[in-house]
Amino acid sequence: MMMLLLVAHGSRRDESNAEVKALANQLLSAESGFADIDCAFLEIAQPSIPDGLRQLIAKGALEIVVMPYFLSAGRHVSSDIPAEIEQVRVEHPEINIRMAPYLGASAEIAQIVMQQASSVLQEI
Amino acid sequence: MMMLLLVAHGSRRDESNAEVKALANQLLSAESGFADIDCAFLEIAQPSIPDGLRQLIAKGALEIVVMPYFLSAGRHVSSDIPAEIEQVRVEHPEINIRMAPYLGASAEIAQIVMQQASSVLQEI
Repeated sequence: MMMLLLVAHGSRRDESNAEVKALANQLLSAESGFADIDCAFLEIAQPSIPDGLRQLIAKGALEIVVMPYFLSAGRHVSSDIPAEIEQVRVEHPEINIRMAPYLGASAEIAQIVMQQASSVLQEI
Repeated sequence: MMMLLLVAHGSRRDESNAEVKALANQLLSAESGFADIDCAFLEIAQPSIPDGLRQLIAKGALEIVVMPYFLSAGRHVSSDIPAEIEQVRVEHPEINIRMAPYLGASAEIAQIVMQQASSVLQEI
């Protein structure tokens, strides 16, 4: 079974973490190619990335896509998250765990920026 | 004249800051409702938000939209950026400076997440 783990930075602000959980739930209830969708956090909030992966494996995942919910390809995306994933790859070599491109890499982001910015222009 | 200031967190990693500048340039070259588009950073990188605003005003902006390039509505979006903007509002009460909703507030973000996550599924 293919499952998705949405990975965010994690915040001291509970509302920010709740936003990510809400997004994961929203994605799950929509038509997706994934049997289950959870979220995990690099720092501060729970579950951690290794725990998030282990929970999906316990739910029967044979393949997991890890999606970095990050706008920039910084140290978090290029080395921190892969290191967290590697811990679980070592524990579960039979599970196929892959990283998707981080959110900011999407060519569509520019369109969303313009929509958000332009939405203010419609207020007179 | 209406101008746009894209505001990102700022990173010690030059490439991350360069990504934001590239995005601002990409938006400028596309059809937009803005006479000019620049970027500024809350921390670490230049220009700061007040300097970014002052530069647009020096270029003739009478109205500026500030677009937070942030995924979550944390302290940065709710208080830090508004405080930076307020410094310049006090200097230039004749300039209309408004904040657009932060990027993560867009209803389209969920679609982008799914596209990015699903792009991995097509690799066999």
